[in-house]
Amino acid sequence: MADLHLVVDRAAGGVAAQIARELREAVRRGRLAAGVRLPASRELARDLGLSRGVVVEAYEQLVAEGFLISRIGAGTVVAPAAGRTAALPVPPAGPDGPSPTPEGPPRAGSRTAEARGARREREPYHGRRSTAPDLGAFPRERWLASMRRTLAALPAEALDYGDPGGVPALREELAAYLRRVRAADVSPDNLVIVGGVAQGISLTIQALAGRLPRGRSPHDLGWFVRRASRPAPPPGRIRLAVEDPAGGRQLPLLHAAGADLVAVPVDGEGLDVEALAATGARAVLLTPAHQYPTGVVLSPRRRAELIEWAAATGAAILEDDYDAEFRFDRDPVGCLQGLAADRVILIGSVSKSLAPGLRLGWVAAPPGIAESLRLARGELDLGSPVLEQYVLADFVTTGGYDRHLRRMRREYRARRDAFALALGEHLPEITVRGVSAGLHLLAELPYGWDEAAVAETAQDCGLAVEPVGPMRHAPGPPALVMGFARLPARRADATIRALADALRRRPAP
Amino acid sequence: MADLHLVVDRAAGGVAAQIARELREAVRRGRLAAGVRLPASRELARDLGLSRGVVVEAYEQLVAEGFLISRIGAGTVVAPAAGRTAALPVPPAGPDGPSPTPEGPPRAGSRTAEARGARREREPYHGRRSTAPDLGAFPRERWLASMRRTLAALPAEALDYGDPGGVPALREELAAYLRRVRAADVSPDNLVIVGGVAQGISLTIQALAGRLPRGRSPHDLGWFVRRASRPAPPPGRIRLAVEDPAGGRQLPLLHAAGADLVAVPVDGEGLDVEALAATGARAVLLTPAHQYPTGVVLSPRRRAELIEWAAATGAAILEDDYDAEFRFDRDPVGCLQGLAADRVILIGSVSKSLAPGLRLGWVAAPPGIAESLRLARGELDLGSPVLEQYVLADFVTTGGYDRHLRRMRREYRARRDAFALALGEHLPEITVRGVSAGLHLLAELPYGWDEAAVAETAQDCGLAVEPVGPMRHAPGPPALVMGFARLPARRADATIRALADALRRRPAP
Repeated sequence: MADLHLVVDRAAGGVAAQIARELREAVRRGRLAAGVRLPASRELARDLGLSRGVVVEAYEQLVAEGFLISRIGAGTVVAPAAGRTAALPVPPAGPDGPSPTPEGPPRAGSRTAEARGARREREPYHGRRSTAPDLGAFPRERWLASMRRTLAALPAEALDYGDPGGVPALREELAAYLRRVRAADVSPDNLVIVGGVAQGISLTIQALAGRLPRGRSPHDLGWFVRRASRPAPPPGRIRLAVEDPAGGRQLPLLHAAGADLVAVPVDGEGLDVEALAATGARAVLLTPAHQYPTGVVLSPRRRAELIEWAAATGAAILEDDYDAEFRFDRDPVGCLQGLAADRVILIGSVSKSLAPGLRLGWVAAPPGIAESLRLARGELDLGSPVLEQYVLADFVTTGGYDRHLRRMRREYRARRDAFALALGEHLPEITVRGVSAGLHLLAELPYGWDEAAVAETAQDCGLAVEPVGPMRHAPGPPALVMGFARLPARRADATIRALADALRRRPAP
Repeated sequence: MADLHLVVDRAAGGVAAQIARELREAVRRGRLAAGVRLPASRELARDLGLSRGVVVEAYEQLVAEGFLISRIGAGTVVAPAAGRTAALPVPPAGPDGPSPTPEGPPRAGSRTAEARGARREREPYHGRRSTAPDLGAFPRERWLASMRRTLAALPAEALDYGDPGGVPALREELAAYLRRVRAADVSPDNLVIVGGVAQGISLTIQALAGRLPRGRSPHDLGWFVRRASRPAPPPGRIRLAVEDPAGGRQLPLLHAAGADLVAVPVDGEGLDVEALAATGARAVLLTPAHQYPTGVVLSPRRRAELIEWAAATGAAILEDDYDAEFRFDRDPVGCLQGLAADRVILIGSVSKSLAPGLRLGWVAAPPGIAESLRLARGELDLGSPVLEQYVLADFVTTGGYDRHLRRMRREYRARRDAFALALGEHLPEITVRGVSAGLHLLAELPYGWDEAAVAETAQDCGLAVEPVGPMRHAPGPPALVMGFARLPARRADATIRALADALRRRPAP
């Protein structure tokens, strides 16, 4: 018979639930092993000075949950299944998923790679991306006001599962906005709301690789069980060209979505379309408005060549419009999608304009692909949360979005000017590349400098920088992506001077 | 030379942008064809009575965007790539995705299947699910108050990309809540926030099928391009047992995630574990607290057998805890996961307790699987929106969630009682199955009744009902899932009486 050591606090109430909780914990932690017999309810009640009904209630609860077994004549015993500790075997590594360690030797020149690896483990996802906006400027009061208006006006039904392609009010507002500001050729019907650019790109690639549903599937158990008896053919893959250099964070996502990557060089005019044509790629992902990381704008000639290539080969163009709201030296160039809406899929979000944490983005695509994305979300996650979609729609309608963008454009322009000026002053060895736009600039280092070491020094000075080496396929000069959006203009000079001092104190590279 | 028919509103300002917009539209719509030469900027300026600089600015914008080409000596012409209309070919149907039409003949007895199909097309996703909560009771003011507190207190960095496994504050609150209310064996570390039960189930199956990453992958372009040169082996699949009958909406999702479905019958004690063992399934998805659609609770004996089966075979148990907050006849039975945390993956959400539109749910899983899910979201969509995660955390901390649940439990109990009473009164031919819980009940119809026809009549009476036929693999008696959560108790009698009258007016089945 078990000695239960039960502690019951009668004043707290819910005494039966307390007993159940203590017994459950004792079974889980192995203090009450399988097969152990519990005291009869009458005895335990007497020991605890409680009515028998309370103990019976606790025992019944644990019998219903499977912790205890009660048999007539045999009393109440701990169930054999309870409290096991043999772990569920972790499934074998997915053949299609990336393996935990990269292949081949570590890259030359990365003597601090391990140190940076450790640092990345400590801050796995938060903050300090070089392309992050100034989150202190998030318009909290106006956002809350939009939320208040939304909650006051929304019919109850709108809180149900939404259209997985996005709530119509937001698609209307965003389509008008993209037509006006990005010269996009888009209607609410071919615009799909997604959880940010990452999801937009992932789903688009899955659609192009033939992995997404193209029509509503039946919800019929019999049909699905019959279907399972046939072997499922492997999902498709697609050869996708990406820019070289390119942002590294999307790479695992692209691969997981079914893309086999081929790198195409970027020069002063943007993506080299002749090299692209030689790859046999069926799709290309690029950042024409402000190439990441080089900051180059795709030239008019290359725009024309790219559309020609897509038209001739039937390929798709994925336009990542990640920071196109911010161009400082002239009006932003209209998006590629506006030039050839039948071949280009435009993908954008509010991650740079408002905050990444909102996870709100959009995809403007030819109707067949837009419908595939919508159906896919209906079968994957049932769409994005609706409330903040309505809030963003209100924020755009009432002019809050435009006002915020105007303010941030002025602010970021001042920050970039101050940043570039300070670099020229204190680190004249560094060459700033790319146009005046976005939230980062490309700083090319003199040959021989160790970009990883310089990046680490800059991070220690509080700068949001990333080495370009891992973003390259073909070798290139050492360079850093330097984020300027979080550094107030008045602090740029002192910060860059501190960086220059720190670099001069280091042993010569 | 083109006749441009430009309309410029000088008073509106931004004249260069107006000209650019009109020209862009003319190219897109084919009014200005490829190769057509535009008037010299000087001429057009004179015609419009504008300064030449304005026209030059508009032309330059369209050259940068690729709509126009400007060559020295040849003037400005419409680009050949602009305004094409050959559509991007829609990709071939995915071999792994469901095809648009089910195979085989339509089910017997579904004489109104087509009519219902058409109706579903008109209301593709919104409303009237039989398991929907009463959305009119959503606590808008308290939610807004939580949002206000959150926005007042949150540090700016919290608006950045969040932990893809969910913000720590919410995982803490939910782990404590699940331990307290669901007797779950969970800590913040093995809890992952997801965009609802659908995404939670989809990702869990992908993890079990070996489709998800198991370690952080490198973000290195060179590595990914080298990797693309080797053929990718097909992603894994897993044999998954589901309950028969089962909710139909998850089926396409399960299949897309890599599950080959096998159906296991449900009887008065819940899932038949002996039949399960005979299937060779490597995992099972079930609803132990309140089986959908039958309303049965998994018996203590079956709970023990199920855990034994999983321990003996190394299989995984997916526990869909979709409406377990609402049990009316007794305290809710603790979740299966609390009995065997190493074998059971618990999946829940606020879709029934608050609103489906919030798209907020959780998965409590053994550490290896939890980490796989977290990494997967870091490579799929970068996690759920953070702001509403903080709001939900505040809502739980401040007691708003418990208060709302207590209120709704009272309300739904009254509604279920009134509903069942009215059915007994006006439609005594119908048998109510299952325990007093959740947001729906199972109404078994007499043999010979056409459930599709009865469902349609009930829908016409304003009831949220669904026929059970498509949810079955093995044949069973005609039955309906009837939602009672949106029908106020005082209206139950009149509504069910109207249904009884309408059914008696129909031609005999």
